Amino acid sequence: MSSHDTGLPQPVATIEGGFWHRYQVLVRDAVIPYQWKAMNDEIPGAPKSHSVENFRIAAGAANGTYEGMVFQDSDLAKWLEAAGNVLGWSGPEEQGELRARVDEAVDLISRAQQPDGYVNTYFTVKDPGGRWKNLREAHEMYCAGHLIEAGVSLYRGAGNRRLLEVCRRLADHLEARFGRGPGKVAGYCGHEEIELALVKLARVTGEPRYLRLAQYFVDERGRAPSYFEQESSAPGFAPIFGIKSLAYCQAHQPVREQKEAVGHSVRAVYLYSAMADLAAESGEVELTAACDRLWESITSRKMYVTGGIGASAYLESFGADFDLPNDTAYAETCAAIGLFLFASRMTRLHDDARYADVMERTLYNGIISGLGLDGMSYFYVNPLEVVPAVCDANGSYRHVKYRRQPWYGCACCPPNLARTLSSVGEHVYHRRGDTLFADLYHEGTVSLAAGRRPLRLRQTTGYPWDGTVRFQALDTSDAEITLALRIPGWSRGHEIRLNGTAVSAAAGPDGYARVRRKWTSSDALEITFPLPVERVHADPRVRADYGKVALQRGPLVYCLEEADNGGSLSRVKLPPGANVQVTQRPDLLGGVVTLKGQGVRGTSPGAGRALYESGGRADAAAPCDLLFIPYYAWANRGPGEMTVWVDE
Amino acid sequence: MSSHDTGLPQPVATIEGGFWHRYQVLVRDAVIPYQWKAMNDEIPGAPKSHSVENFRIAAGAANGTYEGMVFQDSDLAKWLEAAGNVLGWSGPEEQGELRARVDEAVDLISRAQQPDGYVNTYFTVKDPGGRWKNLREAHEMYCAGHLIEAGVSLYRGAGNRRLLEVCRRLADHLEARFGRGPGKVAGYCGHEEIELALVKLARVTGEPRYLRLAQYFVDERGRAPSYFEQESSAPGFAPIFGIKSLAYCQAHQPVREQKEAVGHSVRAVYLYSAMADLAAESGEVELTAACDRLWESITSRKMYVTGGIGASAYLESFGADFDLPNDTAYAETCAAIGLFLFASRMTRLHDDARYADVMERTLYNGIISGLGLDGMSYFYVNPLEVVPAVCDANGSYRHVKYRRQPWYGCACCPPNLARTLSSVGEHVYHRRGDTLFADLYHEGTVSLAAGRRPLRLRQTTGYPWDGTVRFQALDTSDAEITLALRIPGWSRGHEIRLNGTAVSAAAGPDGYARVRRKWTSSDALEITFPLPVERVHADPRVRADYGKVALQRGPLVYCLEEADNGGSLSRVKLPPGANVQVTQRPDLLGGVVTLKGQGVRGTSPGAGRALYESGGRADAAAPCDLLFIPYYAWANRGPGEMTVWVDE
Repeated sequence: MSSHDTGLPQPVATIEGGFWHRYQVLVRDAVIPYQWKAMNDEIPGAPKSHSVENFRIAAGAANGTYEGMVFQDSDLAKWLEAAGNVLGWSGPEEQGELRARVDEAVDLISRAQQPDGYVNTYFTVKDPGGRWKNLREAHEMYCAGHLIEAGVSLYRGAGNRRLLEVCRRLADHLEARFGRGPGKVAGYCGHEEIELALVKLARVTGEPRYLRLAQYFVDERGRAPSYFEQESSAPGFAPIFGIKSLAYCQAHQPVREQKEAVGHSVRAVYLYSAMADLAAESGEVELTAACDRLWESITSRKMYVTGGIGASAYLESFGADFDLPNDTAYAETCAAIGLFLFASRMTRLHDDARYADVMERTLYNGIISGLGLDGMSYFYVNPLEVVPAVCDANGSYRHVKYRRQPWYGCACCPPNLARTLSSVGEHVYHRRGDTLFADLYHEGTVSLAAGRRPLRLRQTTGYPWDGTVRFQALDTSDAEITLALRIPGWSRGHEIRLNGTAVSAAAGPDGYARVRRKWTSSDALEITFPLPVERVHADPRVRADYGKVALQRGPLVYCLEEADNGGSLSRVKLPPGANVQVTQRPDLLGGVVTLKGQGVRGTSPGAGRALYESGGRADAAAPCDLLFIPYYAWANRGPGEMTVWVDE
Repeated sequence: MSSHDTGLPQPVATIEGGFWHRYQVLVRDAVIPYQWKAMNDEIPGAPKSHSVENFRIAAGAANGTYEGMVFQDSDLAKWLEAAGNVLGWSGPEEQGELRARVDEAVDLISRAQQPDGYVNTYFTVKDPGGRWKNLREAHEMYCAGHLIEAGVSLYRGAGNRRLLEVCRRLADHLEARFGRGPGKVAGYCGHEEIELALVKLARVTGEPRYLRLAQYFVDERGRAPSYFEQESSAPGFAPIFGIKSLAYCQAHQPVREQKEAVGHSVRAVYLYSAMADLAAESGEVELTAACDRLWESITSRKMYVTGGIGASAYLESFGADFDLPNDTAYAETCAAIGLFLFASRMTRLHDDARYADVMERTLYNGIISGLGLDGMSYFYVNPLEVVPAVCDANGSYRHVKYRRQPWYGCACCPPNLARTLSSVGEHVYHRRGDTLFADLYHEGTVSLAAGRRPLRLRQTTGYPWDGTVRFQALDTSDAEITLALRIPGWSRGHEIRLNGTAVSAAAGPDGYARVRRKWTSSDALEITFPLPVERVHADPRVRADYGKVALQRGPLVYCLEEADNGGSLSRVKLPPGANVQVTQRPDLLGGVVTLKGQGVRGTSPGAGRALYESGGRADAAAPCDLLFIPYYAWANRGPGEMTVWVDE
């Protein structure tokens, strides 16, 4: 759609086995059916969603009043987006009742759409006069954006045009109302999401108006005088949450002037994702530079080692630079997902593997930590250190749960996980011209249109447990194609073999190692990353991690849990040079590799001494074994302490 | 008033020089005049108090409506209590306009009293129909309690009977309304304070009804069915704060069943103080045992090394056992004051020096840390670690200020400091029979009625900077009197000399060393405590302090400030065995002893490296000097980092 973007469709990989296949099956068979029940208020003991019921009421199919958060519509939308993804890659016999449920939901949404294209059950049912009067807080365009993403997904995954048409009418309604033109309202949404959704809609429909509307929303944001401040001083303005900070919703400055990631972290990365999309479309240098600065702000100064972001529970926000507390962390699952989306776009914007490194870090750690191994229990907040007794007794930790939850009154994260984990195949590769960039490693097949015939490549790997990745060409290409293999930032000393012969393997400055050839259907390319246990240290300016070490192997960050190590994990040390053994444990936590380290544990009895004592040493210590499990798998064996960072 | 209490008036010491004299002068000359202005809304740029104006309106002396927190009356009451203390120990020429201001305030209060004895400007001015309908939240008896303490203080300090009479009528009003008898309401106040105030009133008036009412309030608290729950389910109940937890206000169990200090920490220690008062009056074993358990809960598991309590900003509450975060600490100044009051009562209840150790810890550290050296700037929250940039950017730290504040909308702490620091002389000694217990060390004179003539003892000392304390008898006694000298828990190896000759000096199991004799007016007793620098370690179960050390010298806990040491204090270490020099600095911070330690500082540049890096060591280090100042004196030299606990 622009001179900068190649216009080539980006390749989507199938997921045929291995780590992500298990997640796809889990999403299809457990997550999606469970979440449908949750949104239909059928999970005993869980907070009620009201999402489907609100649509029933708005559609005239039920009586009652709107219930739940003002943005409850978005939960159903995200679920539909996930459903579209699942329908795209699952066979008819695997889909169960999914199509029927989708049809039911889409039917309700269609009927809930107002004659002018407006869709939002809160305002339709509860406050028709309040429409578009509180853009800052009412999440109307946020919900519209998620609905548009669902419409695009159902169209792409299942050829379902019905929701897409609803979304086009909704987008047309927005376009008629908002903008700089005469008779339009120069507003934008307090919770970013519509911007990236409109880019998707433009791409799938080929309609440039939607792209222009996205561009308008991004360009208008943060301009003076503030739309939000004008809005809230209008007569009869009704606040919902009463949050006055413009930085909270990244509306404190025009986006091109923003240098630091601030405010609500989910909103921020959704905005930055749209900025990266638009920069890719237009090639605009200034917008690209803003994306680069905000990227650096996050990934150099405000990101947990798990890829989680948003240090502060207060307003779910970024903290200061290097302010990354482990126990009071917020690190919302949605924020990690948003960072993944931003990272995926930055990878493609710059064709640079270091962005994909963050995709990987976030995906393997801070995103899937939000999902229980059963697919039916969730974390909204993803701390890096938990002491249950403290969470129970100290209200400053009330956002931190150590038991996975069946649902939330504000349930943004569970369906966000569903849509993300069902779409991993979209992020495995990207292409530019005749180069196919392998950004993530997992098992499946990709098809690349090049020359007269598409080239299919099958990737086989035990990644992330095993560091060998094999690419098998399934066709013979009639053009030279470069396969650019991401060399992860954590990797040292990979090897590449083509048909059994070592080939030059150095990564370029962009972090990719390239193999260029006309591929034949017998070609097999193998890349091997040694997977030693890495001792990771944070920038010494990160107070919370100072003097501590985290273990990482491949992309996986590890943690200690009480289930394996007993409690009092703050009294455990992993001295420099400690021996760490790697063990495959197919029996444990769905199959993981564990790390067993030779540690030291404080042994002085606390009982019998004073709370504060003079003289002597703080704690005697004795050797102990420490068993580390992947962070994502924590809290699947009952409550207990957990920590990622361990004293050296 | 009971067989258990000796009935002897407890001795009050003058403060004639040294450490506390400076504070007394500061209170008289700066704090009291400044706070009068603050309560009259005359401090530019400070939050308005409305305290005096509310009384003017209630007295019919001004028009307008009630403004401020529902408990705003208590600020003026605490100030009047402080004024009564100051009038008690200052000469006429030192009192300035204080008497006139007191008369003005007492006049307003008298006129604001309702015909039935009720005093509370919120309900009198704003909601006359709401009186006594929300005992849980409306603080009516809390305000009454502070007024009674003021009345007692003005009577004792200045012989002023007018406010005492107002308070008697107010107490009579309470007594007529509340209790278990027929026609009475079986309620009690959500914020404890009335209980200890009624004990004071009973003691000063000799009226046992007030003691019985205090006993009723303590006995009734937490009984099932809950008064508060019944109250809030009454028709027309109007919540103020909406806090539903009964433990928040220690009303979750009958007090004699309570084993753990929970909920709002100020409320808790005010209650426990009253419990200790009543236990002293009655000698009741069960109530004493409850005090002992709650004391242990706080001082063995929930107290900062500064004597601060209340780990959690959420509901200003105690956290879990050993949950004492330094940077998100609440440690409200009022809570430290309340612990001091509880400790003083426990000292007298048990005649045991370890309770006085906590008085001292709290007084020299967590209480006076709340007062700027100018007397006109305050801390409500007393963290043990501060990084200003984090407090600015991360809303989870919004309760933590690193600049002392001119006043607060909720200004409970500043006048609480005024009344406490003007009454230190009440807590220096206590007596039982013919034993005079020296609980705190500072310069001044005490008079002990014993035999036919009172014995006066003058204490001279440079404490806490210097460890030598000299007692000079000013009279010759005609009876044997035991002087019981507290041997602080931090002391090792004190020496006692009587008229130059060493005497047996061991402390008894109660922590006091005793010298018994008929004192003659030439007797001079000297006790010397060596004051080495102590390296203090917390119980290893305190996560936040694990692997860290704090320096203490005598009763003073020390800290590092950025002003002396630069920033990045989390990267500083004080290795075991590090040499620490003691220096008298009369020029610094009003005159302090500083400690200079041979430390180590992390030196690896953060800039240029990744936020997380594999391999290598976390941080290189280089030797550095570390200058420690007394914790109480922090934040008097502009904003900057501060920490009490330092990595070993």
